[in-house]
Amino acid sequence: MGTKAICPGSFDPVTHGHLDIIRRAARTFDHVVVAILSNPRKQPLFTLQERLEMLGEVTSDLPNVSVQSAEGLLVDFVRSQGAHAIVKGLRPIQDFEYEWQMGMVNRDLDPEIETYFLMSSKEYSYLSSSIVRELAGYGASLDEHVPPRVAERLRAKFASKQKL
Amino acid sequence: MGTKAICPGSFDPVTHGHLDIIRRAARTFDHVVVAILSNPRKQPLFTLQERLEMLGEVTSDLPNVSVQSAEGLLVDFVRSQGAHAIVKGLRPIQDFEYEWQMGMVNRDLDPEIETYFLMSSKEYSYLSSSIVRELAGYGASLDEHVPPRVAERLRAKFASKQKL
Amino acid sequence: MGTKAICPGSFDPVTHGHLDIIRRAARTFDHVVVAILSNPRKQPLFTLQERLEMLGEVTSDLPNVSVQSAEGLLVDFVRSQGAHAIVKGLRPIQDFEYEWQMGMVNRDLDPEIETYFLMSSKEYSYLSSSIVRELAGYGASLDEHVPPRVAERLRAKFASKQKL
Amino acid sequence: MGTKAICPGSFDPVTHGHLDIIRRAARTFDHVVVAILSNPRKQPLFTLQERLEMLGEVTSDLPNVSVQSAEGLLVDFVRSQGAHAIVKGLRPIQDFEYEWQMGMVNRDLDPEIETYFLMSSKEYSYLSSSIVRELAGYGASLDEHVPPRVAERLRAKFASKQKL
Amino acid sequence: MGTKAICPGSFDPVTHGHLDIIRRAARTFDHVVVAILSNPRKQPLFTLQERLEMLGEVTSDLPNVSVQSAEGLLVDFVRSQGAHAIVKGLRPIQDFEYEWQMGMVNRDLDPEIETYFLMSSKEYSYLSSSIVRELAGYGASLDEHVPPRVAERLRAKFASKQKL
Amino acid sequence: MGTKAICPGSFDPVTHGHLDIIRRAARTFDHVVVAILSNPRKQPLFTLQERLEMLGEVTSDLPNVSVQSAEGLLVDFVRSQGAHAIVKGLRPIQDFEYEWQMGMVNRDLDPEIETYFLMSSKEYSYLSSSIVRELAGYGASLDEHVPPRVAERLRAKFASKQKL
Repeated sequence: MGTKAICPGSFDPVTHGHLDIIRRAARTFDHVVVAILSNPRKQPLFTLQERLEMLGEVTSDLPNVSVQSAEGLLVDFVRSQGAHAIVKGLRPIQDFEYEWQMGMVNRDLDPEIETYFLMSSKEYSYLSSSIVRELAGYGASLDEHVPPRVAERLRAKFASKQKL
Repeated sequence: MGTKAICPGSFDPVTHGHLDIIRRAARTFDHVVVAILSNPRKQPLFTLQERLEMLGEVTSDLPNVSVQSAEGLLVDFVRSQGAHAIVKGLRPIQDFEYEWQMGMVNRDLDPEIETYFLMSSKEYSYLSSSIVRELAGYGASLDEHVPPRVAERLRAKFASKQKL
Repeated sequence: MGTKAICPGSFDPVTHGHLDIIRRAARTFDHVVVAILSNPRKQPLFTLQERLEMLGEVTSDLPNVSVQSAEGLLVDFVRSQGAHAIVKGLRPIQDFEYEWQMGMVNRDLDPEIETYFLMSSKEYSYLSSSIVRELAGYGASLDEHVPPRVAERLRAKFASKQKL
Repeated sequence: MGTKAICPGSFDPVTHGHLDIIRRAARTFDHVVVAILSNPRKQPLFTLQERLEMLGEVTSDLPNVSVQSAEGLLVDFVRSQGAHAIVKGLRPIQDFEYEWQMGMVNRDLDPEIETYFLMSSKEYSYLSSSIVRELAGYGASLDEHVPPRVAERLRAKFASKQKL
Repeated sequence: MGTKAICPGSFDPVTHGHLDIIRRAARTFDHVVVAILSNPRKQPLFTLQERLEMLGEVTSDLPNVSVQSAEGLLVDFVRSQGAHAIVKGLRPIQDFEYEWQMGMVNRDLDPEIETYFLMSSKEYSYLSSSIVRELAGYGASLDEHVPPRVAERLRAKFASKQKL
Repeated sequence: MGTKAICPGSFDPVTHGHLDIIRRAARTFDHVVVAILSNPRKQPLFTLQERLEMLGEVTSDLPNVSVQSAEGLLVDFVRSQGAHAIVKGLRPIQDFEYEWQMGMVNRDLDPEIETYFLMSSKEYSYLSSSIVRELAGYGASLDEHVPPRVAERLRAKFASKQKL
């Protein structure tokens, strides 16, 4: 049956940094499920449907990776998938506090589920979806940060915003 | 064949914190190899042979865990085991700098080998072998920190030191 | 007359972590005043009156602890109580930046008033009111995080929200 | 021609901490341009025009310092000035994460432009515009934190707010 | 009878930063005992006797402060004094990891004993005995860092070293 | 005359990370003096003469960079060069505490001298001389970390050590 890991995030949009973590987890674990979390308190730039499409496109070459949306508590989703491991990327500076707290809360909720942290690759160590969205708003080049199809969608999104 | 992870450390001596990480890794991975590293610049309290014995004893109930000593570069040992994953415990405060640097150096040496960090459990989040050795030197109680057999050996070690 | 310490916070709602700090301060200081601060920029989940009631209930067994609401600058409240010491819990990761800054600002405002930091207990080291509110919103179990009476009020609060 | 440095910030309002960094940069570099950035997502307390006036007043004794407003990406502004160096103050605790991330993003956008960090002076090491605004809202003394003319404008601003 | 606090340290030598913490603790607590710890693994610059003398001199104006040497575990010393509180200064950057770990270990050893952390004053926030010793070795001015009598002893100490 | 900056370090040996900082400083400042500090408490791998030679070789293409050895307090050396600026590389994790403390001590010693921190480039963000020495001891590849001539000298150094 094999080991299975969940890679959660809001992926608004997916960046090279996210993809790097997904690819690396897919080399260690037999199956990887990318879980798109919806945060009821944040208005995303991309709809859940758009994020599902983008993640599907950019992981289409990874046979042991699938993409799903997840509502409610993450640990409930992990259990529903018959999984016991979460894999999260950790950037050296900005992620530590938040990810550690979330990881500990998840351990309290279900001690059977483990969060494994992978160090972000050096080249993506300061990349985040929020910075990508901000750069897109300024019309800056996005090729170093996101796959081409995602860059295209970002440009389209901000072009349509301009028109309003 | 299944997934395999290496749990490296100097284990001088093994603590409840180490054991906790080993047990949790052994639930996620099919095989776990505990690798006792020798640091040529540090004089350990316990000989390599003693550390092998102690780790063998305290992991004897874990069928998918084995114990070995490792010399030279960790990435060479990992490769020699046919493994691609290292699992390290991360304590919230004191480990981050050193472990991150070691993890990045290992990625530079072999990008195929991944280090997965597991958060130390709350009850062991400030425990370290060096504190255990120091407490043993003061004759303090060790039961919360190490398994009974290890506590015994620590007492014996410090009793013999006293005599010198 | 004896020493007096102020334990400030927004307590929205009070958690086991807050209570732990209050109890520990009450063993060191002769009198402890829990000060419920109102933050004019944040809309709390519980009204000031509800928070006063909850804190009164959960500290009713501590004879040298009283509860009050505090408006304006904290140092003004501390002085108005004839006190010179503030006691704050410090969680290892997430509190440091904010609490240190607040502590330094308060020292600038009144150098006679000292902030004493107590390390949060291990079991509450990642607990916060905002996480408790979030978990309550998902209907997760709250017993490890807040006293029973507070858990009850949280369930009632979110049940009524559901109905709207 | 000489070396030129840009000191960016939102300066809402300028504090003694900002002024300290500007003065120190003006001793090292031949020309210093203070760049007032507008953040489209934040509503400032002072208008851009007010901030330009205040910075002009408080730097009027520094012959090699000029003040300008800057829109869009900071690196574009730096290039438009024929400059290659940004100088930012760094406070020991609260700035590190954000400033590092911004600095790395700017390096990605233009590797020819360097960000130089100056350590905030001890006496201003916890000072920030947001704390100044908060203290002004409480009517606290501001003389230690901002120049007299800025303190005056803050009092006027909050007096007019009171009236609404 | 009143509240009693222990201020531990190696005080090799006592600095203005140490004195500042002792004075501030002496305003909050009825009695303060300065405890000079001996670290069996470190060779101090000043003998225990010299450190007792220096601390006696520089605290002679504080009627509720006494000075003692302490061997073995700190918590044993605290109990032997009938005290339940330890007061430690915390500098913003360099102390956090070590002091937190020591504080947690002491809580494990005796949960009845509390460590209260006081923020170091801004002007002493980077001062340490080891830097003072290093500066003394270079013949640098010490007046900002230690009381005059301590500066004198440091000069004498290094003058005698020179002669050897 | 122009602006002058000092780049201090022990350079035992110089790495690509050091060179990167020196090159970047040499684009901002008119003159850069690399200052090789001798730490009387540490036994270096390379003699001062060897380090002067290596730094001379690897900076020979930078016309506005010179190399010197510096004894005593760094601020005295900076003044003796008629300079007022120090430029130091800052790696995101491991340098902060130490460099900040040193920077603050130097400001206390001479407030006219400023330390400017440059963020290490991503690819060198975990590189250090001590790791290079350790890798050289294991015979690992050094090409990513140091210039070819330095790699050669490291191999020669460790080959001669083997023979002893």
